[in-house]
Amino acid sequence: MSNKLESYIRPNSVAVIGASTRKGSIGNTTIKNFKDLNFKGKVYGINPRYDEIEGFQCFGSLTDVPAEIDVAIIAVASHLVEAAIRDCVTKRVKFVVIFSSGFAEKGEEGLQKQNEILRLCKENDIRVVGPNTLGAFNIKDQIFLSFTPATIDGISGEIGIVSQSGATGSIIMGMAMEEKLGVTYTLTTGNQMDLNTIDFMEFLISDEDTKIIGTYLEAVPDGDKLRDLADKALVEHKPIVMLKTGRSEAGQKAALSHTASLTGSSRVFEMVTYRHGITLVNGIDGMVDALKVFRSGKRPAGNRVATVVISGATGIMVADKLEDHGLKMATLSQETQNKLLEVVPSYCSVLNPVDIGQTLLDNPILYKHCIETLVETDEVDIVILHLPIGIEKFAYDIIEVAKGTDKPIIVMHTCPEQVIGNVRKILNENYIPAYNSIESAAEAASHLVFYEDAYNNYQINRLTFGEDQSKVTFDFDLKGQTVTEPQVKSILNQMNIPTPKGVVINDVTKLIDQSKHLTYPLVAKIVSPEITHKSDAGGVVLGIKDLDSLMNAFHTIIQNAKEYAPNAIIEGVLIEEMVEGPFLEAFIGVKKDPIFGPVILCGLGGIYVEIMKDVSQSLAPISRQDALRMIQQLKSYPLFTGVRNGLKYNVEGFAEVLVNLSNLAVNLEGNWTELEINPLIVFEEGKGVMALDGLLTFASSEKTKDGVLQ
Amino acid sequence: MSNKLESYIRPNSVAVIGASTRKGSIGNTTIKNFKDLNFKGKVYGINPRYDEIEGFQCFGSLTDVPAEIDVAIIAVASHLVEAAIRDCVTKRVKFVVIFSSGFAEKGEEGLQKQNEILRLCKENDIRVVGPNTLGAFNIKDQIFLSFTPATIDGISGEIGIVSQSGATGSIIMGMAMEEKLGVTYTLTTGNQMDLNTIDFMEFLISDEDTKIIGTYLEAVPDGDKLRDLADKALVEHKPIVMLKTGRSEAGQKAALSHTASLTGSSRVFEMVTYRHGITLVNGIDGMVDALKVFRSGKRPAGNRVATVVISGATGIMVADKLEDHGLKMATLSQETQNKLLEVVPSYCSVLNPVDIGQTLLDNPILYKHCIETLVETDEVDIVILHLPIGIEKFAYDIIEVAKGTDKPIIVMHTCPEQVIGNVRKILNENYIPAYNSIESAAEAASHLVFYEDAYNNYQINRLTFGEDQSKVTFDFDLKGQTVTEPQVKSILNQMNIPTPKGVVINDVTKLIDQSKHLTYPLVAKIVSPEITHKSDAGGVVLGIKDLDSLMNAFHTIIQNAKEYAPNAIIEGVLIEEMVEGPFLEAFIGVKKDPIFGPVILCGLGGIYVEIMKDVSQSLAPISRQDALRMIQQLKSYPLFTGVRNGLKYNVEGFAEVLVNLSNLAVNLEGNWTELEINPLIVFEEGKGVMALDGLLTFASSEKTKDGVLQ
Repeated sequence: MSNKLESYIRPNSVAVIGASTRKGSIGNTTIKNFKDLNFKGKVYGINPRYDEIEGFQCFGSLTDVPAEIDVAIIAVASHLVEAAIRDCVTKRVKFVVIFSSGFAEKGEEGLQKQNEILRLCKENDIRVVGPNTLGAFNIKDQIFLSFTPATIDGISGEIGIVSQSGATGSIIMGMAMEEKLGVTYTLTTGNQMDLNTIDFMEFLISDEDTKIIGTYLEAVPDGDKLRDLADKALVEHKPIVMLKTGRSEAGQKAALSHTASLTGSSRVFEMVTYRHGITLVNGIDGMVDALKVFRSGKRPAGNRVATVVISGATGIMVADKLEDHGLKMATLSQETQNKLLEVVPSYCSVLNPVDIGQTLLDNPILYKHCIETLVETDEVDIVILHLPIGIEKFAYDIIEVAKGTDKPIIVMHTCPEQVIGNVRKILNENYIPAYNSIESAAEAASHLVFYEDAYNNYQINRLTFGEDQSKVTFDFDLKGQTVTEPQVKSILNQMNIPTPKGVVINDVTKLIDQSKHLTYPLVAKIVSPEITHKSDAGGVVLGIKDLDSLMNAFHTIIQNAKEYAPNAIIEGVLIEEMVEGPFLEAFIGVKKDPIFGPVILCGLGGIYVEIMKDVSQSLAPISRQDALRMIQQLKSYPLFTGVRNGLKYNVEGFAEVLVNLSNLAVNLEGNWTELEINPLIVFEEGKGVMALDGLLTFASSEKTKDGVLQ
Repeated sequence: MSNKLESYIRPNSVAVIGASTRKGSIGNTTIKNFKDLNFKGKVYGINPRYDEIEGFQCFGSLTDVPAEIDVAIIAVASHLVEAAIRDCVTKRVKFVVIFSSGFAEKGEEGLQKQNEILRLCKENDIRVVGPNTLGAFNIKDQIFLSFTPATIDGISGEIGIVSQSGATGSIIMGMAMEEKLGVTYTLTTGNQMDLNTIDFMEFLISDEDTKIIGTYLEAVPDGDKLRDLADKALVEHKPIVMLKTGRSEAGQKAALSHTASLTGSSRVFEMVTYRHGITLVNGIDGMVDALKVFRSGKRPAGNRVATVVISGATGIMVADKLEDHGLKMATLSQETQNKLLEVVPSYCSVLNPVDIGQTLLDNPILYKHCIETLVETDEVDIVILHLPIGIEKFAYDIIEVAKGTDKPIIVMHTCPEQVIGNVRKILNENYIPAYNSIESAAEAASHLVFYEDAYNNYQINRLTFGEDQSKVTFDFDLKGQTVTEPQVKSILNQMNIPTPKGVVINDVTKLIDQSKHLTYPLVAKIVSPEITHKSDAGGVVLGIKDLDSLMNAFHTIIQNAKEYAPNAIIEGVLIEEMVEGPFLEAFIGVKKDPIFGPVILCGLGGIYVEIMKDVSQSLAPISRQDALRMIQQLKSYPLFTGVRNGLKYNVEGFAEVLVNLSNLAVNLEGNWTELEINPLIVFEEGKGVMALDGLLTFASSEKTKDGVLQ
């Protein structure tokens, strides 16, 4: 894919369909950009009214152009787009970018028009960007396939931008450049009927010059692909910063009328970004702030931050903000404090925050001494510096110290723009991320820490999950069939999830023989694919104490079942040993997110899940650490650790079942929709766990709540 | 108080103790400010080495000055401060402002020095600002009592700033002015050993020119005073915007080493600001953003927002952010949509967000038409406008529409500073709050709505709570005495909180007579101020079915008690009717916050409070609405409404007890520390509630958990 996009990004020949002489019009600006940026390739205007526009030769029709065309830009009204595409087909154009709006974003009729041109392009191997897009800004080679005037003082650099929204993409680019951050490419997708944000992210990950990726999404075109490419970016240590909108109901409504996209569940999306090391930001400013900090390339070894401030209040605010973001104020040893005090006057504070007050202006080496000291000690992972005013000397002090260290240094100022002058930009240009607020600096530090955590977790997960887990299969046919309790349990057993000792009996003459290995008390339950509500059918008997009662139970259950559902296939009666307390009843469920696949949930059964909504969740599969964390995150967790009656329950066993069920969810074949263990009996520590009942539902069959609480 | 501060804020004569000729020094800048700002009053330098500094006459000692001094500014090293104060005493100076640091903020020794000068000043009726302060900036009259150079392009206006931190106060002032917001005064307090932030806030509330107050606090000097003055500000509709730091543990540590203050519980603080309409912000930028929006003086009628955007993505982001802040996207009627479509092209979206795209540049009347339409319809309470680029015409369109309406209009741009140019500032100058991010604009809108809610709630609460509730008294002596269960219950009964029917019996011969009005089954409990753990003492018998058993229980309890605590005073045995289900067991507690007084908490008893931490809380007193909201906010609330067993419980009765206990907490005399009903039995709807046991602890006595679960 990536290589194939080369001739869109760096075309040798371009045609502008709808080129115009009217200044300020889309058709004019688009073609004029090639002139203004000294494009090295061939450019052809397509407009029957002119022979030449902005110095480029103009043709009546694309088919008249006597040369190959890499990219055809379509800048005509929506009703003329289809004809333009037909010309592209004739001309065997490789890429088309459609600026025109009036397609899927305008409702059903527009969508039909869009599907028609999509079909045309697919049949003829034409790749399309748009419609309803602002196109591409190749800053590196100074090629704009866009109708935004090429007035941006384009700084080339390391940041690649992909945006579903053209306006947002160009705003991010503009703000990045204003902060003196360089950009490789800004690629916008609009309605993305063919090429989408993921295609372009893939391109940027493969691109040598792009080191960081900033992306704006309203919809995720393909959940699996996003996860795969995020992993790839993580391995190559290319941070992806993402602004995902449409979280709110109102936002989702607005998104639909915007670029016609579904925006997905925000909670699951957060889990995806957490797992795959995508830095999620909350707005355009946050995007630029995050790109800035990753651009430094520095990686923190931990989350301990030291800060040098020139006002006590600033120190307090830094401490507050760091805690908000889950970071820690580093504790400075006496040795480090003494080192600071070699230059810092004794009436200043050399605890962290190091508060040097106005003395900074009295002694020219003081600030640099503090920075060096904090950079050198391994008590500190990240240094945040408060810059008082726009004195360039301080900026160059920081730049010099930064050159000799791998430790991240982040700068922030609290003074107005007119006071800081050019200093923030000097720092940014020199790869020292500098911010105009405490909050932004603290958040930036947290991005670095979050990203390293994700990177390290990914390495662990890679070892844990491996590459090729074999699929879990089952030995029964599922077409339109309800899964019975013994079948679910056999699948659970395949995954080493224990279930009660039991046997299915369908012949009363064999009952004595087949039940002789079971220990009383027992439970008996009807087994029938047609009977899903076993209790309602009188199909469950609990607390069977002896063989006589078992015999009675067997007959009663069969008889009740026949009365309840005369035509049901009765496969037999499941006889199981009854579990005895003390135990806790847990719940484990898996739901399939339509975009990102299986999500595993757990909690304590009954009131805890149903009313208190005390549930942890995670993307599947999960590691043992993930599983333990899920359990520990439950508010009801203290019940496992002996707070109520002094008994401790088997958290490890619970975690193991979570891991195994998550593996099942990932590897189970077939179009299943729901998977559940309810209840999972969690015995005391050292005494195991047991899935008392399970549920597995397939899309083709009806929802089959198989079994009943014991 | 306020009037008294007049001669500090607008002095006629000032002495600068420690005035200096060394450029850039504190002593020089301070006195030079009077010259630079053309101060109309008298200024005297105090420094034995000079006859004149910066054009002002200089004396060897303050006592040599042949005139009255309103304000003495002390700008000498900390060890010379006390001598300077003694001169002020001799000279009968009214106000002293101490710039010098090295006092309470530097530990125990500094605190002693500070207390010494405080004693001196108190004895001699001198009011002090500082030490360790940046002083005062009277922008209105152009008088700086500060060592910050008077280079700020001071715009006078409506915003008064009070800051514990000098640096933060001047940063807020600087940023406000950069945004073209005018300031009346910036008053900083430092260590605030005498005059504190609350004193200055009081001054600003009384000041006619000040319409909005921005304040930075590390500590709250007096919780009750803050609540009183916040109410006063609310009545006068002068919004208070507050930045309170030291929330985090690390921040609290830093605050201690900064201005030597305790920072308090952040959860309680949030409740206080919510109740009293103080707008809490999260940082310095947030402070300036909030001051800006309140400065418009416009008040929304509700929380429905309409927005005009020029990019679909921006519309989505606005919708997301508004939802984050609890606001709603207004629904536009067909009529309003048609009105918009009179000018807006049909391919744009006239749903809310109104997305007019680039067409805004094509038609000069389009933008204004949209604004007018949204301002005119009563479907919309607040209008947020997206400003594309720095075209002044649009700004003046907005300003013109705003002149004719009381509806708040908020503007935001997403383009870089160099693109917006001067336009944001033009809007701000004309009282249209304008922001450079979507987030800021949405948050600003939410401030307006929050503030109106608080204002309206205050009016309701004023009616509910009244002015003079009478104190609750009790007829037993409390000095060093434990409160027994019958005593607690008698207090609860005074507040109309029902308790089980019962009687205290201390003479077995009267048992038959005194118990004859009670219905079996009964409960019997020991009553002794010395026996707090009644069950441990064998002092409780449940389920007493008849007179014989009651007799036995009485004897057993008395005997057990005597064995358990031979010297205890035994007041008798409490005999009560036993409650019968179905019911829920609730918990109500009151804790006293050291700064803000009683906070009332509730939840369901047992596991819900203890393990699930499912608790609601509110400042006392509360209204019936507050009480119902507290109960409804519980996660376990569905248990009251019949979700579990179909039974509905008496939420109204629960709420009434909450209200009554909150009134008790506010009006109960004496130095009590803890007040609790546990359990409160909540019967089914229509069947009442009952406090089964209560706890009341006084500071002088030990914690006395009186009674035990039935």
